[in-house]
Amino acid sequence: MNDSRERLVVVGGDAAGMSAASQARRLRGPAELQITAFERGHFTSYSACGIPYWVGGQVPERDHLIARTPEEHRERAIDLRTRTEVVEIDPERRRVRSRDLDSGAEEWTPYDKLVIATGARPVRPSLPGLDAPGVHGVQTLDDGQALLDTLERTPGRRAVVVGAGYIGVEMAEAMINRGYEVTVVNRGREPMSTLDPDMGRLVHDAMSWLGITMVNDTEVTGVRTGDDGRVRAVTTTTGEFPADVVILGLGVRPETALARAAGLPLGEHGGLLTDLGMRVRGQDAIWAGGDCVEVLDLVSGRDRYVPLGTHANKHGQIVGTNVGGGYATFPGVVGTAVSKVCDLEIARTGLREKDARAVGLRYVTATIESTSRAGYYPNAQSMTVKMLAEHRTGRLLGVQIVGRESAAKRVDIAAVALTAGMTVEQMTHLDLGYAPPFSPVWDPVLVAARKAVRAVREAGW
Amino acid sequence: MNDSRERLVVVGGDAAGMSAASQARRLRGPAELQITAFERGHFTSYSACGIPYWVGGQVPERDHLIARTPEEHRERAIDLRTRTEVVEIDPERRRVRSRDLDSGAEEWTPYDKLVIATGARPVRPSLPGLDAPGVHGVQTLDDGQALLDTLERTPGRRAVVVGAGYIGVEMAEAMINRGYEVTVVNRGREPMSTLDPDMGRLVHDAMSWLGITMVNDTEVTGVRTGDDGRVRAVTTTTGEFPADVVILGLGVRPETALARAAGLPLGEHGGLLTDLGMRVRGQDAIWAGGDCVEVLDLVSGRDRYVPLGTHANKHGQIVGTNVGGGYATFPGVVGTAVSKVCDLEIARTGLREKDARAVGLRYVTATIESTSRAGYYPNAQSMTVKMLAEHRTGRLLGVQIVGRESAAKRVDIAAVALTAGMTVEQMTHLDLGYAPPFSPVWDPVLVAARKAVRAVREAGW
Repeated sequence: MNDSRERLVVVGGDAAGMSAASQARRLRGPAELQITAFERGHFTSYSACGIPYWVGGQVPERDHLIARTPEEHRERAIDLRTRTEVVEIDPERRRVRSRDLDSGAEEWTPYDKLVIATGARPVRPSLPGLDAPGVHGVQTLDDGQALLDTLERTPGRRAVVVGAGYIGVEMAEAMINRGYEVTVVNRGREPMSTLDPDMGRLVHDAMSWLGITMVNDTEVTGVRTGDDGRVRAVTTTTGEFPADVVILGLGVRPETALARAAGLPLGEHGGLLTDLGMRVRGQDAIWAGGDCVEVLDLVSGRDRYVPLGTHANKHGQIVGTNVGGGYATFPGVVGTAVSKVCDLEIARTGLREKDARAVGLRYVTATIESTSRAGYYPNAQSMTVKMLAEHRTGRLLGVQIVGRESAAKRVDIAAVALTAGMTVEQMTHLDLGYAPPFSPVWDPVLVAARKAVRAVREAGW
Repeated sequence: MNDSRERLVVVGGDAAGMSAASQARRLRGPAELQITAFERGHFTSYSACGIPYWVGGQVPERDHLIARTPEEHRERAIDLRTRTEVVEIDPERRRVRSRDLDSGAEEWTPYDKLVIATGARPVRPSLPGLDAPGVHGVQTLDDGQALLDTLERTPGRRAVVVGAGYIGVEMAEAMINRGYEVTVVNRGREPMSTLDPDMGRLVHDAMSWLGITMVNDTEVTGVRTGDDGRVRAVTTTTGEFPADVVILGLGVRPETALARAAGLPLGEHGGLLTDLGMRVRGQDAIWAGGDCVEVLDLVSGRDRYVPLGTHANKHGQIVGTNVGGGYATFPGVVGTAVSKVCDLEIARTGLREKDARAVGLRYVTATIESTSRAGYYPNAQSMTVKMLAEHRTGRLLGVQIVGRESAAKRVDIAAVALTAGMTVEQMTHLDLGYAPPFSPVWDPVLVAARKAVRAVREAGW
């Protein structure tokens, strides 16, 4: 086919890739722009973040997690090829080599503009028994389905979750909801290493109180299987934990093997490096977004790896706008994340103590306890807020919150304040919404800011 | 008594006044500073905002609303005189004249520094029958107790609430919770005139759906009483509404008669005018805070009257710090307020359309519907977000939200963004907390910001 249309190729059919494709299509119709997207799995545009809730039973059907099916993308004139993996990027000749995973057939597809949205791959240590039936990751819809199949087919009431980050704690909740006895094995001193250890301890205590066995400071050494080859226990540096099912929640790394092979620039966390318009550095025709890129941390000034669906969707919008001929930028992140385990809510934004130290910032901390509503209002729940402020200047550096209902999203106040470069003293003046059902007369974030102001002052000059 | 200590006199014993007294006491002990506080009522430091929830039954006891009793203040070496009304301020000779409300005895008390925290008085039109038994305001704890006494003593199932602002809608909820048939009579086009009418309409519809009879565009002309002198109905410009009890929620005005008589400067809303340290303009020795002052609206640049407990507490802190020899300022407000009626949540910050017009700002609006959680997550509730942005510059001017669970406090995101002077385009980059139980992948505030960006662009230059 001789075709004068511009050719856009997208590698990866989930949040970032298909948002980019859709946004480019919105800006430029099929007569101007030809879009081909490759996805090695069966599904597109689904919420990986929703998998724990599907496994836990709150989301009844897998398809509820799918925002847009391959067919819906195709109806929008996107040539979407599922079960087709891109195995090589050739930036020199502006083409990609793809393989049909069912037939094995390969072909080259030329591009004028390329979007790399290859996402992340789960960390999976090479340990004995880790491939045994009953050991599951929860990265993809296929992973989730496999886990659910195991849970339905296999009797058993004991689950071991390896890892105590977001995925780990969310999967602990999911298994509790399914009636399992849950053990969480964690190599760190406390769960949720995205928090400082003092705040992680609150998570530890709350999860223990929920009946979850929390095992910290422990390395997994393998999986012991029975005569049938199925998992029986997780072996660790602090002993063996019986398991009918094992869930791996050890975090993810950027899936950038293709990019590396193509000589594209990767950062210290292994993610692609882009400019503010999400174009790969040093490349005219290649953009990247989602879980395969590093992003600028606006607080520390360093590149970070923050694989989150919300960023992937923003990246997709920005990449799609730029490859579609518009203008958009991604200034960076402040590192906001929220999570929950049953009724426990966990939130963080900005720098932890060790992040601040790592970039040479001196800081003070303030930790307060307050409540979600006026103390006299029914169901006022306690929450702990920790705030970091820069020594002398009082600039806000980070906030961590552990509490119950309505605790987590309060971190957004700090996320905006960090973006604006506010000091904790400026924060004490913030005009936040107050009524007894919603907040004490001093919102917990303001209480923390007031204490942080005193800490800055007492630390002197 | 010959006493070389500095003399601080505080007029008004609720949030602002007693916060100021307490903060001054924290900074300077009784050997340095003598503090006398006058309060005409029986109570100090109570949450007037909590009265609707006490009447509605969620707060079981009046005393739960009292943060600090007169005795507790006295234990902190504050000479607190309850049931004692200040009837004259003499700035020339630096003294106040007070009257013991029980004995009628009067005396002069000299001051070196004076704090005026006289609060607000409820709007109470002079209409026939308005003093009849069964007609109640809800401004003070005494008012709340009188209403509760009426509800207990008097049979009846029909309540008419006059006014559809915060107090009106909160009292409508309270009376619904007590099993009454509730009618809300409102002079405005829609309830909640602190919102634009299009958003007020959503409140109207939701309150109607809750079974509350909403009567708009209607002036109350009087109260019809029965042979026993008790209320029987509210008469209005659109007919008569039977009532066993009537609750007045017509808003409040600054209680500044004393200040006016003393020649102190009042603004166009009748509130005291202060400098950034909350010192009354043109006065060396007089500070003021709480519901009797006007505050700077940081968005419009105009003075506003915003009687809210959260500001009163901040003012008290600032006044107390300054009269105690420290340094603190109150930069102003952006006009944030949140409220609820049963499960309906209502929030606003910044300017309404008519506020923007009144100060000569041209603007665009964007209104979106989204959900409180990921659409697939259980109990995702719809919410409507309206955003105003300045023409051309795209600067955020205001946000209004009407929704259900977790809708209202999202307005804090906009409150911080307004304080920081962000544009709606900058807001689209905000790194807000995302996880399926807490938000769609694009938070509703971000969805509104994206639409506002398009509206700014489409409005041209």
